[in-house]
Amino acid sequence: MMAENHHITDIAIIGAGPVGLFAVFEAGMLKCKCHVIDALDFVGGQCTALYPEKPIYDIAGFPAIEATKLIENLKEQAAPFAPVYHLGQRVERVARMSDVRCQMSEKAPSSDICHPSSGWRIQTSRGITIDCRAILIAAGCGAFGPNRPPIEGIEGYEGKSVFYSVVRKEDFRDKRIVIAGGGDSAVDWILALADIAKHISVIHRRPKFRCAPESADKMKKLADAGKIEMVIPYQLEGLQGKNGMLEKVIVKDLDNNKREIVADNLLAFFGLSMELGPIAEWGLNLDFNHIKVNPVTLETSQTGIFAIGDIAKYPGKLKLIACGFSEAAMAAHAIYPLVHPDEALHFEYSTTKGVPG
Amino acid sequence: MMAENHHITDIAIIGAGPVGLFAVFEAGMLKCKCHVIDALDFVGGQCTALYPEKPIYDIAGFPAIEATKLIENLKEQAAPFAPVYHLGQRVERVARMSDVRCQMSEKAPSSDICHPSSGWRIQTSRGITIDCRAILIAAGCGAFGPNRPPIEGIEGYEGKSVFYSVVRKEDFRDKRIVIAGGGDSAVDWILALADIAKHISVIHRRPKFRCAPESADKMKKLADAGKIEMVIPYQLEGLQGKNGMLEKVIVKDLDNNKREIVADNLLAFFGLSMELGPIAEWGLNLDFNHIKVNPVTLETSQTGIFAIGDIAKYPGKLKLIACGFSEAAMAAHAIYPLVHPDEALHFEYSTTKGVPG
Repeated sequence: MMAENHHITDIAIIGAGPVGLFAVFEAGMLKCKCHVIDALDFVGGQCTALYPEKPIYDIAGFPAIEATKLIENLKEQAAPFAPVYHLGQRVERVARMSDVRCQMSEKAPSSDICHPSSGWRIQTSRGITIDCRAILIAAGCGAFGPNRPPIEGIEGYEGKSVFYSVVRKEDFRDKRIVIAGGGDSAVDWILALADIAKHISVIHRRPKFRCAPESADKMKKLADAGKIEMVIPYQLEGLQGKNGMLEKVIVKDLDNNKREIVADNLLAFFGLSMELGPIAEWGLNLDFNHIKVNPVTLETSQTGIFAIGDIAKYPGKLKLIACGFSEAAMAAHAIYPLVHPDEALHFEYSTTKGVPG
Repeated sequence: MMAENHHITDIAIIGAGPVGLFAVFEAGMLKCKCHVIDALDFVGGQCTALYPEKPIYDIAGFPAIEATKLIENLKEQAAPFAPVYHLGQRVERVARMSDVRCQMSEKAPSSDICHPSSGWRIQTSRGITIDCRAILIAAGCGAFGPNRPPIEGIEGYEGKSVFYSVVRKEDFRDKRIVIAGGGDSAVDWILALADIAKHISVIHRRPKFRCAPESADKMKKLADAGKIEMVIPYQLEGLQGKNGMLEKVIVKDLDNNKREIVADNLLAFFGLSMELGPIAEWGLNLDFNHIKVNPVTLETSQTGIFAIGDIAKYPGKLKLIACGFSEAAMAAHAIYPLVHPDEALHFEYSTTKGVPG
């Protein structure tokens, strides 16, 4: 029996932006099932994270469409093919199935033999394993990740007592929390956790917050009522604790005067940035932060790993969503024989073939 | 002063199907003006001519969209860039501007010199001349043209007394007309010309017509009232006349019994078919009925002539509208330096740049 967090599928798509979502549709039309992994907690990639309400003018067939609406439509278009989404996690490890089997056979040498390459195993940062025939990287400019404050040793606390996002509010009940940051995310979580936490200290380097005025007013009322403490103008300076469990957050003002705040948790909200992340270590041919592909098949230098959209690079490549859509179709056709090696592709137009119920 | 039917533009797009229309938009975003020529009397190409009411499922962002609605949207999306449409005509001649100038200078040797290639001159079947920097062929499977009845010497009558479409009903006032064909087009024109023509003979090889039942009823009433003559079951056999002016149409029945019908005009409605037409004679590298292009620039073997959509061929080419849209964007970028040779392209995303008011 397979573990609950172990999946088998045809294609693992990395990136749930517009191009990744359309790849689910194109793959589905060719009878290939997909799992989709994204570092963000929601689908849509940059469209949703960076410019949700901006109209886009260069999607063919839409004189103008808001980014979020485009994503909604693409998700609906992919839905008949029942993709499985694994959000809020990054792909941490990628291994050829032949290597995986070799490892297995080392443990039990007589029970298995090394197979030739016949797929890939992916492992995510949330412990999910996906075995697939092909990997399709549609990761845009790379995974979005939180900007980490430049504090020595902070990595040791991450995921234990220091967080850059809130998954379950209840995890913070009756905790002494330091919340750092001056934007909407910081203020929204200050408001949301005010009644749950035992104590909240708000660290910001200046009195002005870049957030909705209404939220700023609410925060001020909480501060006036003594429910939260405004530690302003201060910046994060250091952490103290043991085994990843925070005891004190050290802050300093603009004159370098330091102060210690007793705390169980630090929540830091300094925005998102993009990085290629672990993809950079998969042995693909890279061109700065882009992955070189064959423009006909969209295949990378690794057999069975394909890349489309902004992350893909070939001569004449344009970073346009319209081009990514076309690449999604071409990659799906190139992947088809890996998934259905014994079936010739009988291509039919969508007007004739339709989509599943 | 330039003649009214002589135009100068940046790009002449041949084909007003979905890919040609999106090319107007992409070219417009790069400050290139377009004229669009199509053999059909309306925009939309196959979408409008062959499957107007069918839902298409594989246009990214539309879980389903009717072909006519897609075309409406694409026309609206192109509109801010003020394309000029020349419909119901084919491109008959294409010449390099350098050759055009050479011809001019032969006529007046001292007044002009041969220029290096700097564009193209196009002439259409309706006598329109378009001078342009680049030609972009988005002609699908070729121009739609009427199916010509297999009658010896019919070419000599075409456009003079034999027609495959009606441009002005008044041209047929008080004429003796033979109308051949058994579909909606034939029947619709029989009904529309019944009160205008002096006499109409209807030629069809069997009593059953493939048309709306209501139209068939109306035609029967006209026949019963003696307003039109049904010549059934007969087929076209030959023409008699002088200098392109028809005098008699010869028809035969299934037993080869012939009959002569005195007539001024023959209108033959045997449906549309697609053919590459004059494009086949432009010196482009062809691969059966497709034009070979560089997949990076979409340029053909002739500098300054580009091809996109179903007519274009390169390794891995898929005949999908989604791929044609991407090719439109790539071709527009490749054409840009031909139109704006001294300006580097400052590419901006549509979300930032917007479109003209």
